[in-house]
Amino acid sequence: MIATDTILDFFLQTRKHTEDICIPLETEDYVVQPVVDVSPPKWHLGHTTWFFEEFILKKYVPGYKLFNDDFSFVFNSYYETVGKRVIRSDRGNLSRPGVSQVYEYRKYVTKNLEHFITEKELSDEIHNLIEIGIHHEKQHQELLITDIKFILGNNPLLPEYSSDFKENPIENFQREWIHIPEGVYEIGHNDNTFCYDNELGRHKVFLHDFEISNKLVTNKEYIDFIEAGGYQAFYLWHAEAWDWVNQKNIKAPLYWHKIEEEWYQYTLSGLKKVILDAPVTHISYYEAFAFSQWKGLRLPTEFEWEASQAYFKWGSRWEWTESAYSPYPGYEKADGALGEYNGKFMVNQKVLRGGSVATSNHHTRHTYRNFFHPYLQWQFTGLRLAK
Amino acid sequence: MIATDTILDFFLQTRKHTEDICIPLETEDYVVQPVVDVSPPKWHLGHTTWFFEEFILKKYVPGYKLFNDDFSFVFNSYYETVGKRVIRSDRGNLSRPGVSQVYEYRKYVTKNLEHFITEKELSDEIHNLIEIGIHHEKQHQELLITDIKFILGNNPLLPEYSSDFKENPIENFQREWIHIPEGVYEIGHNDNTFCYDNELGRHKVFLHDFEISNKLVTNKEYIDFIEAGGYQAFYLWHAEAWDWVNQKNIKAPLYWHKIEEEWYQYTLSGLKKVILDAPVTHISYYEAFAFSQWKGLRLPTEFEWEASQAYFKWGSRWEWTESAYSPYPGYEKADGALGEYNGKFMVNQKVLRGGSVATSNHHTRHTYRNFFHPYLQWQFTGLRLAK
Amino acid sequence: MIATDTILDFFLQTRKHTEDICIPLETEDYVVQPVVDVSPPKWHLGHTTWFFEEFILKKYVPGYKLFNDDFSFVFNSYYETVGKRVIRSDRGNLSRPGVSQVYEYRKYVTKNLEHFITEKELSDEIHNLIEIGIHHEKQHQELLITDIKFILGNNPLLPEYSSDFKENPIENFQREWIHIPEGVYEIGHNDNTFCYDNELGRHKVFLHDFEISNKLVTNKEYIDFIEAGGYQAFYLWHAEAWDWVNQKNIKAPLYWHKIEEEWYQYTLSGLKKVILDAPVTHISYYEAFAFSQWKGLRLPTEFEWEASQAYFKWGSRWEWTESAYSPYPGYEKADGALGEYNGKFMVNQKVLRGGSVATSNHHTRHTYRNFFHPYLQWQFTGLRLAK
Amino acid sequence: MIATDTILDFFLQTRKHTEDICIPLETEDYVVQPVVDVSPPKWHLGHTTWFFEEFILKKYVPGYKLFNDDFSFVFNSYYETVGKRVIRSDRGNLSRPGVSQVYEYRKYVTKNLEHFITEKELSDEIHNLIEIGIHHEKQHQELLITDIKFILGNNPLLPEYSSDFKENPIENFQREWIHIPEGVYEIGHNDNTFCYDNELGRHKVFLHDFEISNKLVTNKEYIDFIEAGGYQAFYLWHAEAWDWVNQKNIKAPLYWHKIEEEWYQYTLSGLKKVILDAPVTHISYYEAFAFSQWKGLRLPTEFEWEASQAYFKWGSRWEWTESAYSPYPGYEKADGALGEYNGKFMVNQKVLRGGSVATSNHHTRHTYRNFFHPYLQWQFTGLRLAK
Repeated sequence: MIATDTILDFFLQTRKHTEDICIPLETEDYVVQPVVDVSPPKWHLGHTTWFFEEFILKKYVPGYKLFNDDFSFVFNSYYETVGKRVIRSDRGNLSRPGVSQVYEYRKYVTKNLEHFITEKELSDEIHNLIEIGIHHEKQHQELLITDIKFILGNNPLLPEYSSDFKENPIENFQREWIHIPEGVYEIGHNDNTFCYDNELGRHKVFLHDFEISNKLVTNKEYIDFIEAGGYQAFYLWHAEAWDWVNQKNIKAPLYWHKIEEEWYQYTLSGLKKVILDAPVTHISYYEAFAFSQWKGLRLPTEFEWEASQAYFKWGSRWEWTESAYSPYPGYEKADGALGEYNGKFMVNQKVLRGGSVATSNHHTRHTYRNFFHPYLQWQFTGLRLAK
Repeated sequence: MIATDTILDFFLQTRKHTEDICIPLETEDYVVQPVVDVSPPKWHLGHTTWFFEEFILKKYVPGYKLFNDDFSFVFNSYYETVGKRVIRSDRGNLSRPGVSQVYEYRKYVTKNLEHFITEKELSDEIHNLIEIGIHHEKQHQELLITDIKFILGNNPLLPEYSSDFKENPIENFQREWIHIPEGVYEIGHNDNTFCYDNELGRHKVFLHDFEISNKLVTNKEYIDFIEAGGYQAFYLWHAEAWDWVNQKNIKAPLYWHKIEEEWYQYTLSGLKKVILDAPVTHISYYEAFAFSQWKGLRLPTEFEWEASQAYFKWGSRWEWTESAYSPYPGYEKADGALGEYNGKFMVNQKVLRGGSVATSNHHTRHTYRNFFHPYLQWQFTGLRLAK
Repeated sequence: MIATDTILDFFLQTRKHTEDICIPLETEDYVVQPVVDVSPPKWHLGHTTWFFEEFILKKYVPGYKLFNDDFSFVFNSYYETVGKRVIRSDRGNLSRPGVSQVYEYRKYVTKNLEHFITEKELSDEIHNLIEIGIHHEKQHQELLITDIKFILGNNPLLPEYSSDFKENPIENFQREWIHIPEGVYEIGHNDNTFCYDNELGRHKVFLHDFEISNKLVTNKEYIDFIEAGGYQAFYLWHAEAWDWVNQKNIKAPLYWHKIEEEWYQYTLSGLKKVILDAPVTHISYYEAFAFSQWKGLRLPTEFEWEASQAYFKWGSRWEWTESAYSPYPGYEKADGALGEYNGKFMVNQKVLRGGSVATSNHHTRHTYRNFFHPYLQWQFTGLRLAK
Repeated sequence: MIATDTILDFFLQTRKHTEDICIPLETEDYVVQPVVDVSPPKWHLGHTTWFFEEFILKKYVPGYKLFNDDFSFVFNSYYETVGKRVIRSDRGNLSRPGVSQVYEYRKYVTKNLEHFITEKELSDEIHNLIEIGIHHEKQHQELLITDIKFILGNNPLLPEYSSDFKENPIENFQREWIHIPEGVYEIGHNDNTFCYDNELGRHKVFLHDFEISNKLVTNKEYIDFIEAGGYQAFYLWHAEAWDWVNQKNIKAPLYWHKIEEEWYQYTLSGLKKVILDAPVTHISYYEAFAFSQWKGLRLPTEFEWEASQAYFKWGSRWEWTESAYSPYPGYEKADGALGEYNGKFMVNQKVLRGGSVATSNHHTRHTYRNFFHPYLQWQFTGLRLAK
């Protein structure tokens, strides 16, 4: 657990970082929602604020006055416990509250929470809630960046977000296969630092011996797959993946454009030539799997990944694993609305491990379990091979 | 035909009026598209500008430099002749070009067209094109107002557009039935003022004698219909209308809310009690028809309307007619892209006659034929009965 | 009105004719519903029987015992007045009642109605109801043939219905343009023989002078249209027709197959080469309209067709007209459930005039108004040009 | 491996058993496909036959003459390797080939394969292929029964399949919790009898200690869940399950009807009162999971199930597990078309263990892994609790 003065700093830095991410945006960029999975930046700003208001200020500050009674309706994401909400696909239809009003809302809630933290001693329960709220906002920082990329990258004008944003760190070392011996391994969070409920409880798994690459698959290797006809070879794909490829006419990772026989990709610093040595990104689980099939190899499970992670560098890409998102043995979901945080998504999703260029500081750890539907490409998702 | 100095005034006033309509908007309001039929205000501003650039400046001004090469793609509405375009349902997904850039685009094109009009004598053809462009922009002014209403009226905060906007003029006179005798009537535009191609050619129709109300149906009468169970009585509705009522769960005109047993409606000046004596509005053709069935009466045809319009006041509501939108005998569509203006919509739509509080000056005339799909409610649509 | 012995004959012949149409079918052919607009033959057999049971026997025969209480639910088509029913898209999901049970149902109702007709004098009202029931069954005979064609013609084995069925009568005469002078014409049914409510009331229309072809458009002419790129030329099509062409990937009339550079069509006597001189058929209104645009001509209105029909042969094809399906002046729909027969379809449909090779005897007349959605191709629909 | 004379018997018995299942059907029942997941019985008869023709006779019998060249197109299920096929949702639209022709097809292929088996010594490869074909047909026998139930159970007449079919065996013993100690367990097929590729390779898993019920959940317990408001309590459900419940308006297991305050269920022997002591069935994974949440318990994983199965009776219900369907370590898919048998479905499906009243003899074993989408109810699916 974090000391009170530290948590205040952590809170204020996190709040500020969210706003820093938005500095390059024009007002209009805050509003749109090109597909249902991508939320308007304005909504992220409001929702992370509402989280603190709803779960802490409203409950624990006597006489707290809501900034605006309608905001619970507007900024609730998926908490059925809390009541009615704007349906997800409608978030991009709301021009009001306006961006400046949302920033006022942020200021109001930040200030009130600052008071609350400094005024009197926090119970452990409240302390924990604040910590969850901070990590919740960090999760949304990641989504904010990937959603901004989608909003700009699907605009025909392909506007730049920031010329400074470095998306494609290269792994400058040789591929090697790390061998991990057969045995029982401990999996899950095991100290008293923050983690989500889905990382608990710590438990044992038996792993047969396996090898895992020290390096992510590169753009160069992925282009080889494309050029070898990977997207036309049904036998490499899951049945539903093959439907997806054909219905959506998928031929390359998201944001890739073929211009005069060369591959370009939209990045947050604009349209650039694909860097061959950089790790491939913006691929779905379906694509990661098909690529591994083509190589005659496979994706690691999340347990294999966790057991071997100390032997390789990670953190620039979310890495698809073969594991479906399921509860660990002994998983217990939290009471009340926060119990909706993780558990209710534990079906039909795949686990990702690692982190990415969009992930905030203090928000990666080797036990962290991200999860997405297997068709999604808009995160900075890549793959590492195993055998 | 209009004299050169007059057309310049007309052009500049029209351009300015479009922008005046947008004065109450916040930047965010320009961007969203809550349903496919409603375009973002920003798009209307750009599209009406693109029309002048594409059909006049680009063709007739030697060396004219496009403001931005990508704007044709962004702001083309439905002109297949002109090339690729953003699909209609994606207009609300574009945060760029931003609002201020769109205003610069307007200024650039307005200035260039002003030069063009004043510099040298205009041929009749060009003169006509400019006149079409002006009327095209006036049509979009109407859509702009109704789209703004939809954007604000579907926001849970129900923001006001302008406290000055008067939506509900009352017809302060008694209902009377105007009798029109049987005979052959001339229909269609018949002088040399501006009209659209769909108002031509002037032709004869035989009308049996009929009676038409001098007054639009009021909110009071429509509430009677609701309370008598009109929305539950299948035999009043067309088969496809009945499906629509049930699938969309329609129970009242658009923008109506029942709050503590009383009817309210969202108006551009905010949420107000329904004014009982004002004409009903925001109803679909389906609803207009069902209401007329319930009364044991019917809607007039567009020919009956045109033949009798001199005997009643009109212009505050678009009035649904029984007539399907079809070409007049002798209809000839224009050559090239402008031939796509009207003719290609002449199937599965119903004709509306009149005008509304959203209609700009000089844009109503008794031969004007508006047309919409029978399920649409977002225009200021009402009905007048006949028998 | 028809004399009692005549109506009995007429009734029995009609009942028999329906069953004769089904002689070539295998049991399995009675069951399937490949698209929602096509009903299983079994359903037609039951529904036409239910009509007599529901509207006559149940009401007017004291102590009449329903053949099966559940059949009203199964065989009601769209009569909301009568109560719940199997939804239309589910008709092909019902394996029971079986075909032989449906034939027993027919026998039972036919016998009971025969008794009823012969036992005692019929009131005019009942007489009319029986006449409607007979004509209703004749309408379904036409649908039965076209639905059978669809069921067999969409089967990859392309089975033959009957080698005797002649689908493609040739009009062996030269094209001529019939000139009809301007004037007021009387339209609608005008004697005391049977007609549907939508053919009444007889009324006057003014027609400008026009010319109409004495001959239907041929397959040869239609192939010219295809080869000239008609299906790729957006400017010939309505906006919604163009969407239809592209979404459904339409490239020719229904049932046409291009095999080794030659056009074949599935007919009820099997797959045959397209007969160049025969009238084109199985085209939608959209296609008929686009063809007429390509020719620089137009479709006649239903009034023009009716006013000129005496000057040309018709009856082998349903002919699309430009007219939307609307009520005639003075149209009054029948009371009760039979009021649902026609009126509730009077929106978004186009009128067809004529008749086809699938139309039963005594079921064509020059005032008859058929109507279908403009995208449908499965009837024997063709076109005649006007100018 | 099975001896030649034994495999012939096994083959012939299996072929006969498929046909025996169909004895109670009327011809019409063979044809329909009420939902896309349910195939017409005729199709199962043809497809299991095509499997032998395509993978054995066509390849290994010199000069073998296909029964009908079009049948590969009609009866291929999902083997992309083999070529084009009728899309799955169209299977119920095919009235031809007729039922009797399909039986002739069966006879022809059975006879040819019988010859082939007896004529000369079979290589191991061919022997294995025949064995797979037999097991493939047994799998379809199960589907055949559940599909027949769906076809009849969704018919408003609720026809009986066979009064002899016993659906609801009761487990006549007390509930007890079996305790399984922590440790490493071996999972997967481990002798030389037949199994599918997805049951290999045998591997080790570590299990924490757990308890598992010796008894399936009963109808009585499930009714308690319903009456306690389980279908209205969002916090018991996965997020996508909750959408499913609301969109489909699910309120009870499939085939359950509440009639005058009592629960009935359609069974293959007709509509019956729900037997309270029998195991609940026809529930989706979503429902099984929500029920377990309501109990404060959980579903076992497939590994827990396999490790403990010797301690309880199973085989009357397919049992949902918590495990997503994934490859075992060392899984290798077969070459060619048979490689499409299992592997390509290993995403977004849940594993079921056990067997059911619809499962054929010799087709259950404790390593068998069935798998379905989590929303499906049409199998005889139940649940066993763990903690």
